[in-house]
Order: sequence, then structure tokens, then C-alpha cells
Amino acid sequence: MRAYDIIQAKRDGKELNREQIQYLVLGYTAGKIPDYQMAAFCMAVYFRGMSLQETTYLTEAMAESGEQLDLLKFGSKTVDKHSTGGVGDKTTLIVAPIVASLGGIVAKMSGRALGYTGGTVDKLESISGYRTQMSKEDFLAQVGRIGIAVVGQNGNLVPADKKIYALRDVTATVESIPLIASSIMSKKLAAGSHHIVLDVKVGSGAFMKTLAEAQKLADLMIQIGKACGRKVSAVLTNMDVPLGNAIGNNIEVQEAVAVLKGESCPDLREISIILSTEMLCLCHGWTPKKSRQEVEKVLKTGVALEKFKQWIDAQGGKTDWIDCPEMVEKSKIVYEVNADKEGWLTAMNAQKIGQTAVVLGAGRERKEDSIDFTAGVFLKKKIGEYIKKGETIALLYTSREKLAEEAKEIFLDSLEWGNQQPKENPLLLDVMRMEE
Amino acid sequence: MRAYDIIQAKRDGKELNREQIQYLVLGYTAGKIPDYQMAAFCMAVYFRGMSLQETTYLTEAMAESGEQLDLLKFGSKTVDKHSTGGVGDKTTLIVAPIVASLGGIVAKMSGRALGYTGGTVDKLESISGYRTQMSKEDFLAQVGRIGIAVVGQNGNLVPADKKIYALRDVTATVESIPLIASSIMSKKLAAGSHHIVLDVKVGSGAFMKTLAEAQKLADLMIQIGKACGRKVSAVLTNMDVPLGNAIGNNIEVQEAVAVLKGESCPDLREISIILSTEMLCLCHGWTPKKSRQEVEKVLKTGVALEKFKQWIDAQGGKTDWIDCPEMVEKSKIVYEVNADKEGWLTAMNAQKIGQTAVVLGAGRERKEDSIDFTAGVFLKKKIGEYIKKGETIALLYTSREKLAEEAKEIFLDSLEWGNQQPKENPLLLDVMRMEE
Repeated sequence: MRAYDIIQAKRDGKELNREQIQYLVLGYTAGKIPDYQMAAFCMAVYFRGMSLQETTYLTEAMAESGEQLDLLKFGSKTVDKHSTGGVGDKTTLIVAPIVASLGGIVAKMSGRALGYTGGTVDKLESISGYRTQMSKEDFLAQVGRIGIAVVGQNGNLVPADKKIYALRDVTATVESIPLIASSIMSKKLAAGSHHIVLDVKVGSGAFMKTLAEAQKLADLMIQIGKACGRKVSAVLTNMDVPLGNAIGNNIEVQEAVAVLKGESCPDLREISIILSTEMLCLCHGWTPKKSRQEVEKVLKTGVALEKFKQWIDAQGGKTDWIDCPEMVEKSKIVYEVNADKEGWLTAMNAQKIGQTAVVLGAGRERKEDSIDFTAGVFLKKKIGEYIKKGETIALLYTSREKLAEEAKEIFLDSLEWGNQQPKENPLLLDVMRMEE
Repeated sequence: MRAYDIIQAKRDGKELNREQIQYLVLGYTAGKIPDYQMAAFCMAVYFRGMSLQETTYLTEAMAESGEQLDLLKFGSKTVDKHSTGGVGDKTTLIVAPIVASLGGIVAKMSGRALGYTGGTVDKLESISGYRTQMSKEDFLAQVGRIGIAVVGQNGNLVPADKKIYALRDVTATVESIPLIASSIMSKKLAAGSHHIVLDVKVGSGAFMKTLAEAQKLADLMIQIGKACGRKVSAVLTNMDVPLGNAIGNNIEVQEAVAVLKGESCPDLREISIILSTEMLCLCHGWTPKKSRQEVEKVLKTGVALEKFKQWIDAQGGKTDWIDCPEMVEKSKIVYEVNADKEGWLTAMNAQKIGQTAVVLGAGRERKEDSIDFTAGVFLKKKIGEYIKKGETIALLYTSREKLAEEAKEIFLDSLEWGNQQPKENPLLLDVMRMEE
């Protein structure tokens, strides 16, 4: 077998078989097939697409390229969640304890921040003492004991995806639905949970700019999951604006805790309830109605908040601040961004707001950058509000005094103003479930 | 400017400007842009194509990537010829002296054999003493003195094409009409002749399998030439079978001399007349009729043969063998390939016959292989002939006794047999000239 022939076959629209796809993925991962051949292949896939069968083979070959987590001993209650990436998305912090408190098994590996999107692992590390690295034995033992553990992604999980993704990123081949689907699903397969809920973001702050594209991606991932013996549901949610009001690390953790306490933040609370509902429908076979009732109950009674404390404590994190928010470390500097005009706020570019947070120190421009856990953006106003001149739109938290002005410029550039109140966009665009 | 954005723009079907194309070509040639980005770009071009304007920018950027030969001092009579590659194609050896004997200036750089196609430079080197490497000064002086010189391609001519072609060859991006056109035309531009005649081969032994594809390629090259201030004509000729009867090195030289002497080999003679006619139409503004009459005259009177001797002598080659064919060195071994059945010869795969010659020692499988100048295949029979069992179809010349059997197998595999005489395919399929 030769890589050349596989590239040519894909270029000419032929369907590849399992052996060809395995040869390519494993050969590339092992460094036997060079970058330029894989780059040509990815561009051919960009134009020709891949059938469901090919995408499934690709997903499996990638999942099998490294270590895989075996969660079979927890039976059929294991459930994972994946978001395609957003700004201000702290749902894992809320959803994981809700689901665990209702009998779901959440053994989760999460990612770090890169570019304008945040990462759950960084948010968790903003909690003093929290350990995001654990031995496999400790991780599985904690899951068995309290039904929940969230750590950083194991270095040897899906090495094929790491290498292929880095290449796609520099060859303009990221935006291919089968390549996106196989990248996500290979990691979910290797992470071992039997059930998977996908949160596919749609809008200006997301990969998928239209609902139709997002539906296509979600459907493909559901089908891959089915072909690989997993149960998958997808919720398609609006990412025209950041989720919630906090974008950063420790301020996002606080916002998540606020939702667990039943305090405000309606959009974040609603998305978290929707995701938890779908996860529990899969785990327990509950109807969506019953599932949602149970979710709302554990939020109301504080059972989910207790599970959150138990989880953080189990992983070495301090929990005393949960009941005393004033204990949480604050940023050195707080800047107010005040309106220099009057009008309706009609759009907030989530990507630019994410970039604002990065400039303030909350994220990474390069992998090796360190993070300021107290930095970030807190939105005092969101889309659809009428703002008077001089009113505070956002607070910028940082320790980088020199960069505050640059951050403010990017933030202001994210806003659009109008003379009329904009139409309210629904938060939930679609729910797609696997047919039995 | 970033290579990424240029790849993305091409991927998305946008038209690139001169700066973008120059940035990519020069950056890649200089090693600043990596192989994997150029591979992704070439695959995007494979799918999206390139406009005439883009292809012209690409051709110019490649031509300008290295040294360029300045032939302006020879005025407007310089004329070059290019063949898209075939088996048994020794037309340069015939056409160059015909044209030079009629006042055309032929200052030509030719290629070496690689894969199943032969190379004019190797054929010339089979003539004892012939120098294919000359200083630029000696080369130009000879052209000024006798109107003809043919050398190997200068190492620093169009380095961009060398590098891009090598990459396309391993990434399944050879078969792209704008990339083929820019590769050929960049070398022709850098080689400096004002007029260019292209021999675009069509058929089983050629890149272009159909006439329509070949016409598209020819038209694009004519338009590029026009945009770059050159005059270009194209002849489209059949390459379902090898040209002439000899495939090798010194046996091809002898066949070329036979045509210059007015001896047999009708297909080779006809193609050579057609190409010379077009070259002289461009040089002198003659009508095709007048041009053909002059060509036939110099063949008949021996003037072209005299020019051939003068040329070989000027480049240090022996010429005594021209009038005494028995002086030419023969191969150690001659194998007869005899028919093991009876019937009409309905097809001869030119590519496989080229491979037969390579196995016998006449070509190169890798760049560093050396060549046996006496090796090759001589066809005693060609398409359309009725063959009786036991009749000799071809002679195989070699010094590699062990490989003769393998070569014979490949040769026999190139043949197709039938019960009816096959329809005769025309040799000349189309002539395309630049509109004034």
C-alpha cells in the first residue's frame, strides 16, 4: 500500500476502505508518512468529503492510535459531554455534578484554553489545590466512589488527532465536517463513556456559522457513535454571544457556583439544564420531561451543589470559598468599560470578547503561555439591552496594566449598536437524538 | 502575508493576485514555506483550478525563480519546441537541424530520461564525444555561428518548478492543467526563445488521455505565452503507440538520421515535418503551405542532414558513423520477441513499451541510474499489421541477460490482439495557433 494511491483515490472521489484509512492514520502518527502527503489528503477530503463508513473508519483508527480508557466496569451509566468550543462556556462545572448527583457516572477528561476559547482544565486549576493530573487508578477509584472526576487530557490519548489537527490548523483544512466529526468523536471514543452528549455551538463565536452546517455535523457524529456502539445526542445552541456574563477562569467558576446555588444567569442555567437533561435521558432512559424535573429538583434542593463540593474536595481543591465568595482572589486591576454613546446593543462578537480575555491574561496565545486565573471580562450588559451614555458595559479584570487599553479597544470593537431593539435569538436551536 | 491565507483563498475559490502567487512561489523555493503548505495549495488548485491571469502570474513567478537565458541578441528568429513527453520521441534530433537550416535559431535546453519516457540529452550523449554541458558563452557563440545548439538543462533554470514538480509527484497533484501548463511554460520562458511550438501528446502513452483535455492544456499554454509576449503554436499528436520503431538511445539517433536521409519511418517523418512547419511559420511568418514545402526541400536535398552533421561536430560529437551506420556500437545481446499467436495487432501500450526499454537498460528508474546507450526496443511490427505465429514482433537490445525475460513479459503485455484490422488513428489530431 502507498500513501500516494490513497490520496489519489480520495482526490478522484473513490471510497476508501478500512485498511487504507488505518494505513494512513497509523503511518502518519508513526512519522512514516510525511506531513505533505497528509496535507494533500486533508485538502482532498475537504473537497470530496467522506462517507459515513469512511468517517467511522477514520474515527476508529484515530481512537485506536493511542491509549484508550476502559470504563466498562461502571456499566452503562457512564456519560460524557463535549462542546464544540465557545466563549464563557463553563457548563461542565455545572452539568457534571448535576448528572453525578442523579446517578450518572461522569469520568471526564477536559481540554485547556487555546486561542479565544477557554478550557475547563484551566478553570478548575483556578481553584486552589485542585489536581487536574491523577494516576489512572486514582481517577477510576474516585469515579467509583463519588461518580465524578474531571482531569486534563492524558498525553497519550488519540495522538493521531493531535498530529492531524496541528497540520490541519496550518493548511486551511480545519473546516471539513468529516474531519471535525472524526476529531471530536475519536477523543470521545477513547475516553470510554458509553453515552455522549454533544453541545454543537452555532453562530459568530463558533466554528459552525449556520444551523444547517451544525445539523450536518451533529448528525454525522450521532451516526459515527451509533456505528461504534455508543449512544449520542446533540443539542445545537446559539453562540452569537458569550454564555453567561463571566469570561475568564476564577470568575467563571464563581458563575458556575452561582447557578448551582440557584442564583441568576438565566442563559447559562438553561443550557446547563438542557445538557444535563439529555445526559440523564441517555443514562437512565428517562423521558426528557422526567429528566428535566429531576435536574431542576437537584438544583433547587442544593444536592447538585453538594456533589460539586464533594467532587472538588475529592480532587484536592479548597471548598471553603464556595460559601464565602468574598474569599475568592480578585484581580489587581479592574477597569470599567463605559458606553461612549447611547443605543441598543444589537450584537456582541463572542470571538472578539474571547480575545479581549486573552489579552487581559485569562488565556493563551501560544501553548506555553501561562494564565492569570483572576483575569477576564465580566459583562454587565448583554445583547438586547438599551444602554445610556456613560453606563458600564463590562468590567475588565487584569494584572497587566499596560494591556488594558488594547483589551478595551478589542472589546468595544466586538459590539454593534442600533436604533431598535434587536430580535431575541433563541438559545436552543435544535435537539437531535439517535433513532432507536 | 501568510501562506495560510493564500491556501484558504484558493480553497474558497477566490482569485489570487500577483503578490500572493509570488510570495508563495518564492517563499517555497527559498524553503520558507514548508512542503505541507505547498501540498495543500496544489491540491486546492487541483480542485479549484486557476484563471488565465493566475496561471500567468504563477508561470512568471516560477520562470523568475532562477536564471533566465537572454536570447534577445538573436532577434525574433529564436524558436523552441517542447513535447509533453512520449515514448520513442526523437523529433528534436530531426526538427532542430531542419529549422536551423532554414534560418530559424534553435538554442535549446533538453531534459533527461526519467520513468518510461526518454530524454533528448541522453540520446545525444550516446553520440561519442557530444558535449551536453557548455558554458553559457560557448553555447551562445555556437548558436550565433551555426544557428543551433542543444544542451542539458541548466541546474539553476526554474528551481521553483523542480521543487514544486517533485512535490506534486508524491502528493497526487500532477494532473492539474494550470499546474502542468505553468510548469512547461515557465521553463520555456526562462529558456528565452521568442517562438515556441508545443507538441501535446494525446493517448494511452501520454498525460492527456483525451483530445478535449489536450486542447484545454494547449489553449492555456498559448494564452500564457501571449500574456508573456511570446508566440506559441501547438500541435496535438497521437501517442497511443510509440513514435517511430526505435525506443532507446543510439538506436533512436540512427532512426532520426534515417529520416534526415529520406529513408523510411513515415510516422516519425510526418510529425517532424509538422513540427518544423509550425516552427518556421512562427519564425518567418510563412504560410503553412510555403513552410511545409521548404521543409520537404531541405529533407530531400540533404541540407538538413548537413546541418545535423555541422551541429554534432560543433558540439564535439563524432560524425563519421552518419555515413557508415555499421560503425555504430551494437548491444551485446539481441533477443527476438516472436508471436506466440496469430492475429491483428490492435493496440500497443506506449507506456509499457517505454518500461520495457527501461528494464533493458535504456532508461532510468531513479535519477542516479546510469544508462546503457545501446539498449532498447526495435519494433518490427506496429498497430494495424496482421501477424502470423512465430513472426518477429520486436528486437530487444540489452547487455543485461538476466533481465531480458522480464522485459519480454512487459513487452508482450503491452500488446492487444484482435480478429479484425483496427481502425487507423490519425497521427495529427489538431493544430492550434495564436490568434493575431
